[in-house]
Amino acid sequence: MKQSIFQSGGAFSAEEREAVYRAIFERRDVRENFLPDRIPEKTLRRILLAAHHAGSVGYMQPWDFLIIQDSDTKHAVKSLFVQANDAAALQYRGKESGLYRGLKLEGIQEAPINICVTCTRDRGGPSVLGRATVPETDLYSTCCAIQNLWLSARAEGIGVGWVSILDYDSLKKVLDIPQTVWIIAYLCVGYVSGFAHQPDLEKAGWRKRLPLEQLVHYERWGKRSRDESGLSGPGLEAK
Amino acid sequence: MKQSIFQSGGAFSAEEREAVYRAIFERRDVRENFLPDRIPEKTLRRILLAAHHAGSVGYMQPWDFLIIQDSDTKHAVKSLFVQANDAAALQYRGKESGLYRGLKLEGIQEAPINICVTCTRDRGGPSVLGRATVPETDLYSTCCAIQNLWLSARAEGIGVGWVSILDYDSLKKVLDIPQTVWIIAYLCVGYVSGFAHQPDLEKAGWRKRLPLEQLVHYERWGKRSRDESGLSGPGLEAK
Repeated sequence: MKQSIFQSGGAFSAEEREAVYRAIFERRDVRENFLPDRIPEKTLRRILLAAHHAGSVGYMQPWDFLIIQDSDTKHAVKSLFVQANDAAALQYRGKESGLYRGLKLEGIQEAPINICVTCTRDRGGPSVLGRATVPETDLYSTCCAIQNLWLSARAEGIGVGWVSILDYDSLKKVLDIPQTVWIIAYLCVGYVSGFAHQPDLEKAGWRKRLPLEQLVHYERWGKRSRDESGLSGPGLEAK
Repeated sequence: MKQSIFQSGGAFSAEEREAVYRAIFERRDVRENFLPDRIPEKTLRRILLAAHHAGSVGYMQPWDFLIIQDSDTKHAVKSLFVQANDAAALQYRGKESGLYRGLKLEGIQEAPINICVTCTRDRGGPSVLGRATVPETDLYSTCCAIQNLWLSARAEGIGVGWVSILDYDSLKKVLDIPQTVWIIAYLCVGYVSGFAHQPDLEKAGWRKRLPLEQLVHYERWGKRSRDESGLSGPGLEAK
């Protein structure tokens, strides 16, 4: 694995390219089907190293990874989830409420490990290159690191589920995370028996995937084709 | 490509896994070596589709992609960069100031296309599943989409450079982006003659990559090994 880090930045073969897309299209937000199998240290290290190779504003590398295995800790986090989820469920009425309560939204205790990913916002000192205009870029960098972890985990056969239904201030207390450090994600991580074909919320009929064409603009917000923008060449929707 | 989206969620071969890591480790924040070659529509569509397959809180899919090709628009954005960069340079003194001014931090005009990625924060209506506790999760989802785009672009031989040294309010005016929509990234995108072995800021001596071990904690913040946390098994640093 070490070698590939330092190899030259040449072209990908068709097979390599396809593998990258496969990881991207087959990544899932996993809440079930976790297996109890232990993740070997070197595999865990690889997915953390993948996360650590995200770009970061001013090369700030603001992320930290807190690995949780202890069942008492998981139990405490699960309690926070139940509390936050009960409150969240009250937002929904009628059919939506029933659907919401039927969804499985975390795998905190089933997943052999949980990983809390944080952002230390003062890591780069007061003047981080590129961050003067957009202070949130350190949060953004941390999310890019999480996506690296998520995709490399998929390639390893490891499922990752991001739990955001948690009160992060209470979670900080459970994990002794300093007040100034931001929690960005709480991830349930483990080998799975398989990955679903569709995202869970799509399968459950909660919401559909939007057509890509609805999300692409040309030159100016709201211009839906290249023609409309006065440029030659058809837009994506013509393909 | 279509097929791989719907194929079953099985195991990756060793070669496929290696290709995913290759994309992750060889992705660079690209500011130079852009080629003028046109990106075919179907390739552009593939990397946008990769972005669109990120997970999103409550399946909200809050992202939009604004494709910029027009040289007048690029010129206007470049002017915003110059203005913001001159202001940013004043933060540094002495040797650091000289180093900063020598860095190439954007490829707005050299890259054949620019992509502005936004987050429409009210897309999912008032009650987005999973977002009640952490409202920023829509921003986080959008960053995950950007990382998908970045990695798939690497696999296509396309370089991506994220420019954050821009006043986003002024940029919104240039691109007619509604006030309520957030700009998350302004990306310079194009085929490149090659990808650098090291991140530019590392090569320039601006900052070093931190050792992964410094960023990993066990069970509680600050606990640097599994032993210290009272669990069996060595930590990552023993490998």
